[in-house]
Amino acid sequence: MVQTPTEESASLPKVPIPTLERLTTYLRCLVDLGASGVQTISSAQIEEHTRISAAQFRKDLSYFGEFGKPGVGYQVSELEARIARILQIHKLQPILLIGAGNLGMALAAYPGLEEHKFRIVALFDTDPHKIGKRVHGMDIIDFSQLGEINEVLQAQIAILAVPTGAAQAAADTAIQNGVRALLNFAPAPLKVPAGVVVRNVSFLQELAVLSYHLTETEKRGT
Amino acid sequence: MVQTPTEESASLPKVPIPTLERLTTYLRCLVDLGASGVQTISSAQIEEHTRISAAQFRKDLSYFGEFGKPGVGYQVSELEARIARILQIHKLQPILLIGAGNLGMALAAYPGLEEHKFRIVALFDTDPHKIGKRVHGMDIIDFSQLGEINEVLQAQIAILAVPTGAAQAAADTAIQNGVRALLNFAPAPLKVPAGVVVRNVSFLQELAVLSYHLTETEKRGT
Repeated sequence: MVQTPTEESASLPKVPIPTLERLTTYLRCLVDLGASGVQTISSAQIEEHTRISAAQFRKDLSYFGEFGKPGVGYQVSELEARIARILQIHKLQPILLIGAGNLGMALAAYPGLEEHKFRIVALFDTDPHKIGKRVHGMDIIDFSQLGEINEVLQAQIAILAVPTGAAQAAADTAIQNGVRALLNFAPAPLKVPAGVVVRNVSFLQELAVLSYHLTETEKRGT
Repeated sequence: MVQTPTEESASLPKVPIPTLERLTTYLRCLVDLGASGVQTISSAQIEEHTRISAAQFRKDLSYFGEFGKPGVGYQVSELEARIARILQIHKLQPILLIGAGNLGMALAAYPGLEEHKFRIVALFDTDPHKIGKRVHGMDIIDFSQLGEINEVLQAQIAILAVPTGAAQAAADTAIQNGVRALLNFAPAPLKVPAGVVVRNVSFLQELAVLSYHLTETEKRGT
């Protein structure tokens, strides 16, 4: 969820978060189809490939204007370019990754980042045993150097893959040095100034939501 | 997002997913407060601790009936117990973790699982170099043994921390052996039978949503 101190509706744009999330699924599908030579596609084919209903797909696109032609479908390359532009991933987005533990390593190796124009440009840690080691083509850099490094890199997005107790300080340092969007994996709410966006990923939340749905499907007897 | 082949509204219960997600934040806050001896709390204090607005907190609780007393506030222990029951985490939920790579290791070490009554009871991998090794108090078990192991453990939730290409087969095996809820970290849509719930966690989606919001705040000039 996007963290906001007020009612969600008051501070977020009108496009629902699930719609934005699904856009990346469509984009991935379109990239794959384009690569295999497909030029036009129908919403029914989108459903087949993504398992998201054709109706949902059309509804999601409707937030952003007119797409496709009745009876013809969608131009794969055009739709791909437009979704990429909506998500601002038509240009490369440099990302700082803070924390070179197991989670940081998993994120550094995550498939498909580059394909979606995200690039982890620097990896930081505070552990002297890790600093200087090379992983996935990057040196692990001393976290205290984040300021001077980001003066050059100018990244606006940082991923926090640090222990709970270190999350706020890592966020503060990142923000002081030009970062304006944080993806936070620590189960701790962050205090950030206005104009900085935080997105929290909590495994606990995911499990809790799953647990709730599990019970709901039990009740329905499905 | 919860994966569903139809319109979201048609297949999900009426409680919004963000509400369910925030419940775990409240729960964590209440557990902490209870541990430090606090007995009653106001929604303003909840806001102070969680950085979720008091209004949002009251709205979230309203989905589940009456809570708290005007002018008195909420009994910490009672509210904690009720939220835990809503999320079905008043009883221990055993979880199978499939994939002992970096992500699997990070999940196995994730703080706060037990506190929320989730317990990873078995860790599986297919890599002969990993099978038999001990991590976080668990032996890594050969994935081919999942069936006989879960006959004993009876876990209904599985976490998939496997490469994209292995996700569907891992899901199929888990479902054949009693799993009815999947937390999927692979960027691949899963095909599952009716009655099985899937929740997909995609780092790409998170980054894309963040990227979109970053642009939105730029446009607003905040």
